[in-house]
Amino acid sequence: MTTLTAPSRSRRDLAGAPFLVAARGGRPERLPVWFMRQAGRSLPEYRALRAGTGMLQSCLDPELTCEITLQPVRRHGVDAAILFSDIVVPLYAAGVGVDIVAGTGPVVAEPVRTAADVARLPELHPEQVAPVTEAVGLLINALGSTPLIGFAGAPFTLASYLIEGGPSRNHERTKALMRSAPDVWHALLGRLATLTSTFLRAQVAAGVDAVQLFDSWAGALSERDYRTYVAPHSARVLADLADAGVPRIHFGVGTGELLGAMAEAGADVIGVDWRIPLDDAARRAGGTRPVQGNLDPAVLFADPASIEAEVVRIAAEGRRTPGHVFNLGHGVLPDTDPDVITRTVELVHAQPV
Amino acid sequence: MTTLTAPSRSRRDLAGAPFLVAARGGRPERLPVWFMRQAGRSLPEYRALRAGTGMLQSCLDPELTCEITLQPVRRHGVDAAILFSDIVVPLYAAGVGVDIVAGTGPVVAEPVRTAADVARLPELHPEQVAPVTEAVGLLINALGSTPLIGFAGAPFTLASYLIEGGPSRNHERTKALMRSAPDVWHALLGRLATLTSTFLRAQVAAGVDAVQLFDSWAGALSERDYRTYVAPHSARVLADLADAGVPRIHFGVGTGELLGAMAEAGADVIGVDWRIPLDDAARRAGGTRPVQGNLDPAVLFADPASIEAEVVRIAAEGRRTPGHVFNLGHGVLPDTDPDVITRTVELVHAQPV
Repeated sequence: MTTLTAPSRSRRDLAGAPFLVAARGGRPERLPVWFMRQAGRSLPEYRALRAGTGMLQSCLDPELTCEITLQPVRRHGVDAAILFSDIVVPLYAAGVGVDIVAGTGPVVAEPVRTAADVARLPELHPEQVAPVTEAVGLLINALGSTPLIGFAGAPFTLASYLIEGGPSRNHERTKALMRSAPDVWHALLGRLATLTSTFLRAQVAAGVDAVQLFDSWAGALSERDYRTYVAPHSARVLADLADAGVPRIHFGVGTGELLGAMAEAGADVIGVDWRIPLDDAARRAGGTRPVQGNLDPAVLFADPASIEAEVVRIAAEGRRTPGHVFNLGHGVLPDTDPDVITRTVELVHAQPV
Repeated sequence: MTTLTAPSRSRRDLAGAPFLVAARGGRPERLPVWFMRQAGRSLPEYRALRAGTGMLQSCLDPELTCEITLQPVRRHGVDAAILFSDIVVPLYAAGVGVDIVAGTGPVVAEPVRTAADVARLPELHPEQVAPVTEAVGLLINALGSTPLIGFAGAPFTLASYLIEGGPSRNHERTKALMRSAPDVWHALLGRLATLTSTFLRAQVAAGVDAVQLFDSWAGALSERDYRTYVAPHSARVLADLADAGVPRIHFGVGTGELLGAMAEAGADVIGVDWRIPLDDAARRAGGTRPVQGNLDPAVLFADPASIEAEVVRIAAEGRRTPGHVFNLGHGVLPDTDPDVITRTVELVHAQPV
């Protein structure tokens, strides 16, 4: 584990940034908004920049990562940047044979399914993610007063890629391993928790102002299974960040049943998808934590009046929570019109806080 | 709309069948079990029979449909057969340009996105599904004392195929249309409700002993949107079946938040996926209806002890409901070992009722 070193600038500079105020449960001057996957395929300038460059290559080129991360901040005026990265970046950096295949997603050369496979998994050393921490450094200088959110996939989601060998709709090998070989399972999740923790601490040391732990697929589990097989490992990652002094956001899709358990795992802010009202979500998460969300990404394909109605409704529900960071309930869909995203940011900023 | 005609045999013959007893909230002699997609790719005899024959062709060949439907009953000893069909069969039969492409799913030649598109949609006449009702007739003779469940996709799920033009992960065009053009949306759903109702009534007239309305993708909606845009149309389908005298099962995936609304739409039995405990699901569905479910299909890939533990747990939760039909929480996954399915049926039958 890395020791946290002082970031390259004082975070106090940004203490008044609406995103950080809301994420700490304060009342910001305006309703802050950012969008998951705001950096990415919805932007023509992103597609132009990425042309001919692989995904992992882009995530490990500090200048390219910096520019891609800045694009949506520049264009949309969002209240936070999120480090452009991919869930498998720390695995790749540690030496795991993984590639991101266009149209498929991450493909793992040698799936991990036995105790021996787990024992062979390399550890992540912070210097192996130097291109990422360098990108963070560049971003901090470029972003001015806009906070930067660090990013990592949670142990369960990483485990699913490693066990299945790639993206999976039903996670059957993952769920089979977790029940049939709990020792192997917990050894694997333990290693992935350490890797995730190392990756996020390196980002914090480099100066990110918040972190988001993405457990993309946690919603495939019942609460019982989530608590038994997953929560302890996500909790360790979040506990390892507890002394970092930055808000920790914990997010998954389809997790209405899991919000209590995800909050208990130790997050400061709970991300919520669009399936349940935000005030209900805040109650399920214990009633004391700020929430982040939760506009259905598909709503951005509707007419302006419908988008406005949904933004107004969500902002009103957000005012009945301990704190609200406006976001989508999942990532920006690739075919989203970027002008609609910009107008949605303006609309969010026009809401009462 | 067809007039219901007397089925070709008396349903009273089967009144003691465990599946029908449980589906009516009675106490059957043993815990009944069937599996969604029990007829299909998990069975080598199915793959052999289907070799060289397209999906729609198979669904519209009475003898082939009959044999495929019988295969899992013969092999596993399940307590109900489910008519082998596909969600798009009634659309295809009515003359909509749709094909099922291997590896992709249903592909619609001309997506439906405007009032004019909706107006052009053909109606379904019962005689257009004669191959399906013929298959029902053959099955009734072949099945002996095993009940046969009829099958149709719900209006929302059909609408998503028609609007998106094929399977969709995010349903963005569907959700955009429903908000941006509610008149077009409700006109489309109304037509699809009539088509679904006609299809199910034809199956009832031919003699099925129960029907299941599959709203595969309802779980992509918030409860608010489900109640506004979807529930009234599913309710009409279920109301049109109210006088049919057969149990109506209503099922979707990821619908923990929607169980109350889905029950209010008028079903007799509520299907539940694996994400929430069955007794909790029964309470959410109003506390008076039998439930069906809810073993995670991925559990069938685990070791025998884990499968047994889950079956025992679910059977125990089922005893705390107004009635329980054991099933998976979604369809059988194609790579499932058929011997494991057979052993699971034996295990379910060994549970106390």
